[in-house]
Amino acid sequence: MLIIMRQGANKNEIEKVKLFIEKKGFDAHISIGELQTVIGAVGGKIMDPRDIELLDGVSEVIKITSSYKLVSRIFQAEDTIVTVNGIKFGGNNLGLIAGPCTVESYEQMDKTAAALKKSGVKIIRGGAFKPRTSPYAFQGLGEEGLEIIRAVADKHKMAVTSEVMEISQIPLFEKYVDILQVGARNMQNFNLLRELGQTRKPVMIKRGLSATFEEWLMSAEYIMAGGNREVMLCERGIRTFERITRNTLDLSAIPVIKKLSHLPILIDPSHGTGLRDKVVPMSRASVAAGCDGLIIEVHHDPDSAVCDGAQSLYPEQYDELYHDIKKIAPIVGKKVF
Amino acid sequence: MLIIMRQGANKNEIEKVKLFIEKKGFDAHISIGELQTVIGAVGGKIMDPRDIELLDGVSEVIKITSSYKLVSRIFQAEDTIVTVNGIKFGGNNLGLIAGPCTVESYEQMDKTAAALKKSGVKIIRGGAFKPRTSPYAFQGLGEEGLEIIRAVADKHKMAVTSEVMEISQIPLFEKYVDILQVGARNMQNFNLLRELGQTRKPVMIKRGLSATFEEWLMSAEYIMAGGNREVMLCERGIRTFERITRNTLDLSAIPVIKKLSHLPILIDPSHGTGLRDKVVPMSRASVAAGCDGLIIEVHHDPDSAVCDGAQSLYPEQYDELYHDIKKIAPIVGKKVF
Amino acid sequence: MLIIMRQGANKNEIEKVKLFIEKKGFDAHISIGELQTVIGAVGGKIMDPRDIELLDGVSEVIKITSSYKLVSRIFQAEDTIVTVNGIKFGGNNLGLIAGPCTVESYEQMDKTAAALKKSGVKIIRGGAFKPRTSPYAFQGLGEEGLEIIRAVADKHKMAVTSEVMEISQIPLFEKYVDILQVGARNMQNFNLLRELGQTRKPVMIKRGLSATFEEWLMSAEYIMAGGNREVMLCERGIRTFERITRNTLDLSAIPVIKKLSHLPILIDPSHGTGLRDKVVPMSRASVAAGCDGLIIEVHHDPDSAVCDGAQSLYPEQYDELYHDIKKIAPIVGKKVF
Amino acid sequence: MLIIMRQGANKNEIEKVKLFIEKKGFDAHISIGELQTVIGAVGGKIMDPRDIELLDGVSEVIKITSSYKLVSRIFQAEDTIVTVNGIKFGGNNLGLIAGPCTVESYEQMDKTAAALKKSGVKIIRGGAFKPRTSPYAFQGLGEEGLEIIRAVADKHKMAVTSEVMEISQIPLFEKYVDILQVGARNMQNFNLLRELGQTRKPVMIKRGLSATFEEWLMSAEYIMAGGNREVMLCERGIRTFERITRNTLDLSAIPVIKKLSHLPILIDPSHGTGLRDKVVPMSRASVAAGCDGLIIEVHHDPDSAVCDGAQSLYPEQYDELYHDIKKIAPIVGKKVF
Repeated sequence: MLIIMRQGANKNEIEKVKLFIEKKGFDAHISIGELQTVIGAVGGKIMDPRDIELLDGVSEVIKITSSYKLVSRIFQAEDTIVTVNGIKFGGNNLGLIAGPCTVESYEQMDKTAAALKKSGVKIIRGGAFKPRTSPYAFQGLGEEGLEIIRAVADKHKMAVTSEVMEISQIPLFEKYVDILQVGARNMQNFNLLRELGQTRKPVMIKRGLSATFEEWLMSAEYIMAGGNREVMLCERGIRTFERITRNTLDLSAIPVIKKLSHLPILIDPSHGTGLRDKVVPMSRASVAAGCDGLIIEVHHDPDSAVCDGAQSLYPEQYDELYHDIKKIAPIVGKKVF
Repeated sequence: MLIIMRQGANKNEIEKVKLFIEKKGFDAHISIGELQTVIGAVGGKIMDPRDIELLDGVSEVIKITSSYKLVSRIFQAEDTIVTVNGIKFGGNNLGLIAGPCTVESYEQMDKTAAALKKSGVKIIRGGAFKPRTSPYAFQGLGEEGLEIIRAVADKHKMAVTSEVMEISQIPLFEKYVDILQVGARNMQNFNLLRELGQTRKPVMIKRGLSATFEEWLMSAEYIMAGGNREVMLCERGIRTFERITRNTLDLSAIPVIKKLSHLPILIDPSHGTGLRDKVVPMSRASVAAGCDGLIIEVHHDPDSAVCDGAQSLYPEQYDELYHDIKKIAPIVGKKVF
Repeated sequence: MLIIMRQGANKNEIEKVKLFIEKKGFDAHISIGELQTVIGAVGGKIMDPRDIELLDGVSEVIKITSSYKLVSRIFQAEDTIVTVNGIKFGGNNLGLIAGPCTVESYEQMDKTAAALKKSGVKIIRGGAFKPRTSPYAFQGLGEEGLEIIRAVADKHKMAVTSEVMEISQIPLFEKYVDILQVGARNMQNFNLLRELGQTRKPVMIKRGLSATFEEWLMSAEYIMAGGNREVMLCERGIRTFERITRNTLDLSAIPVIKKLSHLPILIDPSHGTGLRDKVVPMSRASVAAGCDGLIIEVHHDPDSAVCDGAQSLYPEQYDELYHDIKKIAPIVGKKVF
Repeated sequence: MLIIMRQGANKNEIEKVKLFIEKKGFDAHISIGELQTVIGAVGGKIMDPRDIELLDGVSEVIKITSSYKLVSRIFQAEDTIVTVNGIKFGGNNLGLIAGPCTVESYEQMDKTAAALKKSGVKIIRGGAFKPRTSPYAFQGLGEEGLEIIRAVADKHKMAVTSEVMEISQIPLFEKYVDILQVGARNMQNFNLLRELGQTRKPVMIKRGLSATFEEWLMSAEYIMAGGNREVMLCERGIRTFERITRNTLDLSAIPVIKKLSHLPILIDPSHGTGLRDKVVPMSRASVAAGCDGLIIEVHHDPDSAVCDGAQSLYPEQYDELYHDIKKIAPIVGKKVF
């Protein structure tokens, strides 16, 4: 930690800061500049920067060590590659996931899966437990939904991803699902994250609506700290003042995360924009920016979808997009799965 | 729901919108204006506005019924008043809660409670389970923390409020605590909210860092929908681009919530600003704006606090603030508890 | 305008709203629904929705006509194509602009232009008047800067774009420059916009740091209302809570603007990210999303740049990017200029 | 400037940073810590932190000197007090300004002024040149408006404040007006600010919709750098994701600015909330938080106001508020003017 003293801070103030730091178990390294004195605090464990900010004569306090370790590129230089049902995410690989917002019925899942299979999809998504803003909205089929998606996936030789909302659901998900998703609203449900560190299936963690990159990485750190090394990050739009799009999809997440972390970074353009006609251009953009994967909502008949039909592609649209992706990916050095 | 057609939308497009609405189980009321046609959709159950937005000729779709019911002033005109240990929140009453961020030890809680008692505090706060961004940070004393705060509160004839993070902790909280808090990061942990609807102790729900007023009310609706009528809302700052303050405390929450809902609205100026020297002016401001309660971090010795000492008041500061509050409250028609 | 009455609003309240609307010169069309009455206000000129929101019994007021006209796709269905020095922006065309942040000297401009020429650049950028947050920072070379960039551009057969900050500078810009830029901080400098409506050179207007799409289009409307039809929009990042990137580049601007307006939409990935290593991926992403142009900062020697060197590409990097762009553009149906 | 090297940065990387710094005219002070090396750069003039961030081995770069000087409390410890027509802003003084959004006619201004006079108002506000999002909206009466407000103010022995939008209007304002306002949208119109540094009348500068506190102070610095010492800051709400209020009024501006700067901080609760019923509670809150002044919209007949009637108080409401303010101010050590 670095403590920047104000211009004109006196000896007494500097001395008090030094004593405070030492009391907290840190060593104080004082370096007196032309205009300002800077004090480095090293060697201790925990100190809240704001405690020092309140001392007289202090201008600013700066944390210089990032709080995450296991997720950092410093800890692991080479890209983590997560492989599910032959599909690879990370490194030079671009994995694709598609499927409806919600599992509605066996028939719906089967029709959608059959359509997607033709476009090469090998991992299907579909919600069984749905986080809904309103207590009166459809909350998903629950375990029955997981049974359906598993059965359909097995029939079509696909793997399954679905959102887990609560600790008590984890055993169910370990039974039915290949990738466990953590939703944006649960990105800082730390109890859930800690438990997911104990599972040995890959976990995909979405970015919270107002989460900084650092907080997001810290949440991934919770999972890795439990021993689970197969963590994937998924950007799905942040909340800004704009109202025409549901959220603002932040594609700079791709180069930023790839620099800070070795974990795969996926994009969810469906929630990120909220409207079908924005999904296709933003998917292509994600690939061109170098993402490691895409998770896209597709429904065999979006007009009759129970949920989020407006942001779901028609199977033909997905197929067309898939062909575009296969053209763009090699330009940025990626192999499409 | 109202569908605004574009200027120049043709008969065919209008007819298709009508058919779509009717297929979804709604009646369509078409009113042809000078410039634009407006179609009202009434009587049905659920329809995603975006599904219609995607139809040809549609300019905009507007939801006209708010999604919350039980929390609304339309449902209940008179203010809900929550009473805990003789302290009232809501109506003409302003309740005060104070205490440290975290339960550290019996001695710390006892000293703080003894100091606060002199300033009339009858409800003490203190975290036993702490939501921490980092998995490596102190996570609270757990059940031991709850035992300590209960014992100290009983000794000083105080009630207790503390944050519950997870469904499995609810029985513990029902045993030790008088008000169950839901933290900002859990505001949309819908499973937790649903379970809290089953308890019969008051629940205080904090506003999420990027939650709209409507979403916040919807989360309170989850709790009320379970049958728990004693719900309190607590503003604790939203996330904006500003960096000097930890969050931006949104005091307009007070008049806005009082207009939309009958539930008490409290302010947490400690998390809302993150710095002790901002807590006092913002507390006074909250009272002048008409809040129904304040929850303020106070530590008997902030400099040695394990957590959030920088935003904790010294007991003497709290006492001084308490006297200011007692002067300001009557000017806005409030009685201080 | 549509006025949604509350559930249970009484006849008296409805009557008062009707009278208010009529007093303002509008006709009131009342339609009584099952749950709520909706009143349409048509035919009048100006009415502030909030005036009605304050009347008793009113739940919500909705504006149904967008405020912009000339910039709208409804007004003009076909894409506006702006051509400068043979470079086309809009329709199926993707125009490229490159150059340094600031004009520093003849030598610097000449070297940069010579390097860019090899990569096909035909429009060069460079600031002569610089909007700087600090009054003590370098404010640009002024008219001398315009003279230099013009001379260099003429030598290399290029066109020139530069930022105009103030009404009194317009005659200078008409003399030296081919495209007049309006900076993000001046997006709502309405006096400047009105005057730019009088010029007959193309104007490129950047999106303000917290401007909605609608406000941005309204600012373009100011320019078009003065008779200037050659307006281009340029996204350059919005302000959010994130700190690692300088701004959050909102690429959804591309599909959104293309739907609402016929004007060309350009992307400035240099200001949008603020760091060189993010510029390349975000440029490729912009092209894949279908943008009509890119304006990219390139300096012959970024390490010695007076300003924004950190976000400027090396000429070799630009050349490599140019080749990627030429590969991606045809996939999305664009011809690169 | 402080350069924090990554953990494990090697000697070669450190050496390159040192050379870079020295090339830019700074001295490099290297201090090697247990985990990380920190390099201080002192003595030079200008260096873009991002240039260093891009060098190998660099983790983070921190600016340690704030860019503003004249506006800072370090430069001037005692509060600046601005006095206009006997009304004082700053120090222990709380000045009040009231009046309509826009000058509509002599009669309107006269009626409003007569009403306000009874509540002790000595400075009247009213717009003559109006910044409007739409080119088709009413743009104000212009010079005629200034003549009217001046005549009315003289009749009632009041001073005048009004918004100046453009450099060429400054002479007019020097003739008619006592306080020149800079609107939120012009907060970074640097050319205008520089010219306002040359006037010798007080200038009130509003905070931009997405301006940080530091940027706002930098804009005030532009004015002070020109020699004008009578600068006042006015918070009027920032843009966030919330939609119910027009803006989010950030009252933490009061304690933050009072700590960083000696300049008076005023609050505009009318634009800050956009709705009359929120103006009264937020005004009281501002006073309790310790603001140095309030500027409040009042119209003799808000229902017939040309502009912003919905956020204008009735004269009786203002009078009631005035009495509340006089009760709250002494509690926080302020004298009301």
